[in-house]
Order: sequence, then C-alpha cells, then structure tokens
Amino acid sequence: MIILGIDPGTADTGYGLIEVIGNSKKLLDYGCINTAAGFPLPLRLEKIHYAVQALIEKWRPDEAAVEQLFFSQNIKTALTVAQARGVVLLACEQKKLLLGEYTPLQVKQAVVGYGHADKKQIQYMVARFLQLESAPKPDDAADALAIAICHAHFCQNRSLRGESR
Amino acid sequence: MIILGIDPGTADTGYGLIEVIGNSKKLLDYGCINTAAGFPLPLRLEKIHYAVQALIEKWRPDEAAVEQLFFSQNIKTALTVAQARGVVLLACEQKKLLLGEYTPLQVKQAVVGYGHADKKQIQYMVARFLQLESAPKPDDAADALAIAICHAHFCQNRSLRGESR
Repeated sequence: MIILGIDPGTADTGYGLIEVIGNSKKLLDYGCINTAAGFPLPLRLEKIHYAVQALIEKWRPDEAAVEQLFFSQNIKTALTVAQARGVVLLACEQKKLLLGEYTPLQVKQAVVGYGHADKKQIQYMVARFLQLESAPKPDDAADALAIAICHAHFCQNRSLRGESR
Repeated sequence: MIILGIDPGTADTGYGLIEVIGNSKKLLDYGCINTAAGFPLPLRLEKIHYAVQALIEKWRPDEAAVEQLFFSQNIKTALTVAQARGVVLLACEQKKLLLGEYTPLQVKQAVVGYGHADKKQIQYMVARFLQLESAPKPDDAADALAIAICHAHFCQNRSLRGESR
C-alpha cells in the first residue's frame, strides 16, 4: 500500500510518499511545494493544488493523511494554513483518495511512542523507520513523512483488528 | 461588467452575481451552496469548488470578490471557513478571474455608508441598490451581494481615477 502524507502550508507544503509492505516501510519520495510570498494567494493555492494532483497521478497512492487543524497561538498563520489545507483536501477528494486525519499527539505517539516528543526525536524516528542515514529535509517533508507513518500504523492496527476501510 | 461576490463557509457558501452598467446595478443571480454536516469535509469542499466553477461557467463574470479573512471569536469556525475560502479562491484562479478582497468594514462603508452598520441595514441597502422589494434570502446570499456591490464601487472609483485593473 502506498501512502501520501501531507503537511499543508501556503509557503511550504511538505509531502512524503511511503510504501508499506508487511511490517516494513519504504521511502518513495518526499519534498516540499514552495510558493513565493510575493505572489497573490489564489495563484499560490492553485500551485499547491496542481502539485498535489501531480504527485497523486505520478505515485498513485492508495490513501492519504494530513494533520487535523488545531488552534495555534498565531491565528493569522493558522488561517493561512487552513486555506492551503482546503485545496489539499480537495485534490485528494478529486482523486478519490481515502483520507486519514490525525492530531499532532497521535502522530508523535505513532512515530516516537509518546506524545511529548520534540521535532528532533520525530525526525530521528522517521529516518529509522525508512532506513535513512539522516533525517529528511526540509522539516515540512519530515513532518509529512511522520504523518504518513502514523497513517501506516493506523492501517496496520485496523487490519489486525480485521476492519475494512 | 459582471461581478461574482462570494461569502464562503463549509455549510453555507453564499453567492451573488450582479451586472454593473454605468451607475446602475442589476441582479443576475444569488443563492447558497449548501453542504450537509454529516458528510466528510473533503467531499463538502469538492461540492463547493464544483458549484463555484459551475457559476463562473454559467455567468462568465469579469471579476470576483470575497471578504478578507479576519480573526473571529470562534476560532474553530474561522478555520473551517478558511478551508472553504481556499477552494473558492482556487476556483476563481482556475477560471482566471481577477479577485478583490475587502474587510467587513470596507463592505459596510461601501454599501451603507458607515462601518458600524448592522445586518438589517446592509440587507436593506442591498435590496435598494438592486431594486428588489425585499432583502434577498438567505443571509449568506445577501452578504455575498453586499461584497459584489462593494467591489462594484471600488471598480467605479478605480475607473474614475483612470486606473486600469
């Protein structure tokens, strides 16, 4: 099964694609969709939407995963992220991808094992899970891979419990 | 010139289309794109995106207008509105519509004449501007028409000043 993890943002939308075979996870692709701050927001949203659609067409993931929206201390940033998240969810829906949503706590628990893990610990575990020598860069791509790994664990538990999607 | 005003929301996205001929404004269409609360968010966003694209294809507006995002007391609502706004801006950009963004204060000043106008006063003036016997319903559609009227005023001032878009 191929999973696309996405960490949406207007300036930087991180993405990571992993393939789950049994208990192992293989890294397929990761990176960041960047849009320039000087460009109008509708144009930046179009670029993000187009790039996510292109990733789905290229890798044909079976499912996708994003973080749940949460209240951030910087409300302006949160509102901008939410608009980018809107076009990311749309791109997934248009390609008929099943979508998992997880809280930051769930992602940390799934990847590191406890909910108060910091960024460095998450990145270390992402690299270990995917047999990489160092943490994937930039941070947004590592976050997206962590979300994909969290979804993979959720799917494994789901199939262990004998549930269908 | 035909203007599409939009008031985005996940449950109710109001829209209004007006035609500006000289100093007069003619109502073309208005209404509300509704999505059911029980449906998954990606599906609801897809419906909004599709419906806005269909409106643009039907009426071929020259320009569009939305309210600027602002901090609301209910942060959860604001984040949901922002996701809907993301797919609305995307639909406008994909159809190459020039987009105006206005603060609630600007909309009230343009439609009623002062920034502390209440909902009833705005609806009364929207009906007067468009030669309607009563305020258009639902409220989200009236709000969208107010945004379109605000944009029309902005465009008229722009052309009076001899500016191009």
